[in-house]
Amino acid sequence: MKLELVSTTKSFEGEQRVYKHHSNILDCDMTFGVFLPPAAVEDKTQCPVVYFLSGLTCTHENFVQKSGFQGTAAKQGLIVVNPDTSPRGVDLPGQDDAYDFGSGAGFYVDATEAPWSKHYKMYSYVTQELPEVVNENFPTLPGKKGIFGHSMGGHGALICALKNPGLYQSVSAFAPISNPSECPWGQKAFTGYLGANTENWQQWDATSLVSKYASTPQELFIDQGSADNFLIGKQLLPEKLLAAAATNDHIQTIFKQREGYDHSYFYIATFIAEHIDYHAKLLKA
Amino acid sequence: MKLELVSTTKSFEGEQRVYKHHSNILDCDMTFGVFLPPAAVEDKTQCPVVYFLSGLTCTHENFVQKSGFQGTAAKQGLIVVNPDTSPRGVDLPGQDDAYDFGSGAGFYVDATEAPWSKHYKMYSYVTQELPEVVNENFPTLPGKKGIFGHSMGGHGALICALKNPGLYQSVSAFAPISNPSECPWGQKAFTGYLGANTENWQQWDATSLVSKYASTPQELFIDQGSADNFLIGKQLLPEKLLAAAATNDHIQTIFKQREGYDHSYFYIATFIAEHIDYHAKLLKA
Repeated sequence: MKLELVSTTKSFEGEQRVYKHHSNILDCDMTFGVFLPPAAVEDKTQCPVVYFLSGLTCTHENFVQKSGFQGTAAKQGLIVVNPDTSPRGVDLPGQDDAYDFGSGAGFYVDATEAPWSKHYKMYSYVTQELPEVVNENFPTLPGKKGIFGHSMGGHGALICALKNPGLYQSVSAFAPISNPSECPWGQKAFTGYLGANTENWQQWDATSLVSKYASTPQELFIDQGSADNFLIGKQLLPEKLLAAAATNDHIQTIFKQREGYDHSYFYIATFIAEHIDYHAKLLKA
Repeated sequence: MKLELVSTTKSFEGEQRVYKHHSNILDCDMTFGVFLPPAAVEDKTQCPVVYFLSGLTCTHENFVQKSGFQGTAAKQGLIVVNPDTSPRGVDLPGQDDAYDFGSGAGFYVDATEAPWSKHYKMYSYVTQELPEVVNENFPTLPGKKGIFGHSMGGHGALICALKNPGLYQSVSAFAPISNPSECPWGQKAFTGYLGANTENWQQWDATSLVSKYASTPQELFIDQGSADNFLIGKQLLPEKLLAAAATNDHIQTIFKQREGYDHSYFYIATFIAEHIDYHAKLLKA
């Protein structure tokens, strides 16, 4: 698959790159970020790869510019890949009408409803096509793959892992939308992308997936700021996911509540090193 | 002086705040960032303060969002203040015609030419009014003040220090415009703000100021990426400043060239911790 290099910038002795490519699954051109740690640049040493999924309204740029992950990823020797949050450059009616549906709000599902089903297959893009592209073009270590994300992307990271037992050896989430079937953001997105039948939503809902999970044991590291307006506004509902996990021996959770932190990139930046270190520990084990 | 709190966000156990106030010197409202380390928030412990001056096109936001300075400033217990790069909300003919003159390009001088002289007094704002506002409103440690900056702001940091011997106990610069009288950016700005007589430029040119400096010994930490397009394009000319310093016993320079780094915030983010540590060492001595 052909990749077009948009930019490459030296960062912490590694390289922060941005690429563009044509996605067959999404049927449009997509942009993503790749950070290569020094070893992957210098002598193409194979490194574990961690995928970061961003939240509503983000492109690939927010995480790359604001989270400050590069320093710790360089030190730990991790490749970090972060895709965009929806198909781009397509032309669907209503795609730009709201910040929480359509452009910038793909919700990491495979849409079944017209017209979204033509392009909005972010789940397949993130779990299949993008890793193929990444493995073909960068020195990734086979079988060493992690995933994490923020808010809508935290939801994405959780469902990608829970729907594919064993595919990711490390999973974490900042302020994830943990039970989308039960919150306004999720209900709007799922109705639009998946239709009104809520039974069809359950395979895309982390809390529901945790309830039914009966495969390879999986640890989930959930991070949450206590002063997060969207926690208070009942959009995130981590308590539902934690309750479901508490009654399932196949799921282990680490939950860290951060006193006084909100939903912003300042919160992410404060704890990103801890997450990168967590992924490194599991992926380099 | 009255400060309006625009936002406060917890960051690395400290607080990243943004304030707005009316500047008498600039005769307009100005916005600036203040990071308070944990000790300054919790029990108002007096802390050294470091001023960061940004480059062309920036507002207060770029440094706050992209440099990742907060982690090291929190650890070192430094207050970090970063102003905007020009007067705002004024209405001067031509102020928005170019990225390198007028709005976002105040160049940290006191303009003498009409119409700029009415508002464009960033030098006095940064060295006098803003520190007064900061000292009145935050727990700063008297006599412990540093200054640094990037590109146009590196120039600003250098001239603020060189024109005020002893005022700043620590001075550093990322990719500073080191000899503005001799580069296109500086010549355009100085002609516009200071007039065509190049003799009047010399008091605002770091290389010229270094040549004539004969006061309290001053150390300058100059940082420069080797792959910086503006270095290659002769906008920065650090070699001129270093040559002038080499023949002046009152000026000591530390020069670090960073192989392969460009002019971006990725470069700043890579070395910001080293600069913060440098300021902390001198300010806490």
